[in-house]
Amino acid sequence: MKKFAIVGYGNIGKACAKRLKNLRDVELVGIFSRRDITSEFAPVYPQKSIFDFSLEVIICTGSANDVTELAKKLVCNFNTVDSFDTHAKMREYVEDMDRLAKEHGHLAIVGAGWDPGIFSLARALFFGVTGVDAQTFWGPGVSQGHSEAIRRIEGVEDAVQYTIPIDGAIERIRRGETGLSDRQKHRRVCFVALKRGANRDAVREKIVSMPNYFAPYDVEVNFVEKEELKAHAAMPHAGIIMGRDKEGQSNLELSLKLKSNPEFTSGVLVSYALAASKLDMTGAYTLPELPVSILLDDVMKFV
Amino acid sequence: MKKFAIVGYGNIGKACAKRLKNLRDVELVGIFSRRDITSEFAPVYPQKSIFDFSLEVIICTGSANDVTELAKKLVCNFNTVDSFDTHAKMREYVEDMDRLAKEHGHLAIVGAGWDPGIFSLARALFFGVTGVDAQTFWGPGVSQGHSEAIRRIEGVEDAVQYTIPIDGAIERIRRGETGLSDRQKHRRVCFVALKRGANRDAVREKIVSMPNYFAPYDVEVNFVEKEELKAHAAMPHAGIIMGRDKEGQSNLELSLKLKSNPEFTSGVLVSYALAASKLDMTGAYTLPELPVSILLDDVMKFV
Repeated sequence: MKKFAIVGYGNIGKACAKRLKNLRDVELVGIFSRRDITSEFAPVYPQKSIFDFSLEVIICTGSANDVTELAKKLVCNFNTVDSFDTHAKMREYVEDMDRLAKEHGHLAIVGAGWDPGIFSLARALFFGVTGVDAQTFWGPGVSQGHSEAIRRIEGVEDAVQYTIPIDGAIERIRRGETGLSDRQKHRRVCFVALKRGANRDAVREKIVSMPNYFAPYDVEVNFVEKEELKAHAAMPHAGIIMGRDKEGQSNLELSLKLKSNPEFTSGVLVSYALAASKLDMTGAYTLPELPVSILLDDVMKFV
Repeated sequence: MKKFAIVGYGNIGKACAKRLKNLRDVELVGIFSRRDITSEFAPVYPQKSIFDFSLEVIICTGSANDVTELAKKLVCNFNTVDSFDTHAKMREYVEDMDRLAKEHGHLAIVGAGWDPGIFSLARALFFGVTGVDAQTFWGPGVSQGHSEAIRRIEGVEDAVQYTIPIDGAIERIRRGETGLSDRQKHRRVCFVALKRGANRDAVREKIVSMPNYFAPYDVEVNFVEKEELKAHAAMPHAGIIMGRDKEGQSNLELSLKLKSNPEFTSGVLVSYALAASKLDMTGAYTLPELPVSILLDDVMKFV
């Protein structure tokens, strides 16, 4: 019986718990959280008590500010799988995890979600066979990172941000255009609930001028009541990776449409966690560095 | 300087030769053929003389009847990469190649084309993260295997066969339908040039009743002059792999559109041949069994 644990219990953590609970030959030993939570799927323990347990794999969910620090501690004691998704910090994080994992004889699978994750694999493959960088579009869908960036603004009670490909932009890439700017590829639509007494204009200005996150895009800001944000709870997402050789002779596209981003991400995490529990490897690996056959009992069925 | 050779010099062989010729740090030592051919890209030698050369990797192109026997001899002496594409014989072929490659300390990359190849990888990945078999559609495009099957019929001078997805079938799968028959997924359109004196009706009957290849499909047979087949020389192809979880919440699609099937296949072959020349591995591997990072200098750029 393989013993798994989940650290962090947000949307992805819950979806992972449900999946692990429904699997044979797997024991979900516990959910480890710093918060005072309950779970229908497994006992809940304080996060720090995890080091008292003997476990096969820890799934460290999410990309909260401190997930990298926590994961680095965990990988010294266990095999880990995570869906860390801050692209800009990925290289440094993987290097740290790789060093620690090797020092302690463990395996870390890093960025096992859809992007980074499945999309990383597609970008790497498409470049590998065409020699040209692939183009990525995200949406229409909810970006957790951008929603969170709005929530951190003073005066904001809650927020949901939709990333939406610009009409016609995907067709322009298909026709072979290059060099589209951020603004020409995506727009951003925000639904923001303010705290009592907050200033709309000040919040709007802080959103649209935020470097990297919003400044390079056309941004629509809609102020709504907190109650209205419940209509945006589903967290759908979508995206497409477009590969094309220099002559435009060969075109590859991977597209993804998700009714629930956490649901799909948990599927990726749990699949790779099961694989990790069977592998005899040490070090940290992203999805393009692992053969997809590790997910399967009989890969030849799919060749 | 890595030394490569090409065995077999059809459309894929030529496209591979051109690619290798244009690469730095690569020497295309020769083209080895049983036929009396010339090449603008490298010296041509009799096929059997290949064993006199010291080479890094042999690219054995195509899936002719004897390619498996030839490849099994080659892998005892060299690393090999091929785009063998007879799905039904794949498992046995890989097992044989794996045993021989390991016995002789070589690496064989098998089925490095688009299907088997890139599509195998997608099918394996989509099943791996959804737990449900993906659906494959081929076309619209020219199937070499089906064209060749027609050419072997007595009285046929030359032939080209187009595989075409049935209108609306891809949409039915997207809506969650399952259990579509072969006939409901694809139709087959043939352009056939007859030898002088051949009987149209007899040839048509032999085509439409051919087991596996044509009998399970609606088939359109068009008889044309040999000259007219030149209009069908481009060999475009296309296809789509559709993955979907049990609840229909997550949908993944990999689609491919190729103006020239041999051109794209040669890109895959040469990419994996370059990777093979750098890897320190023995045995036979299909694409889902290899990390895509072997194609790249710096995988983290794509994560």
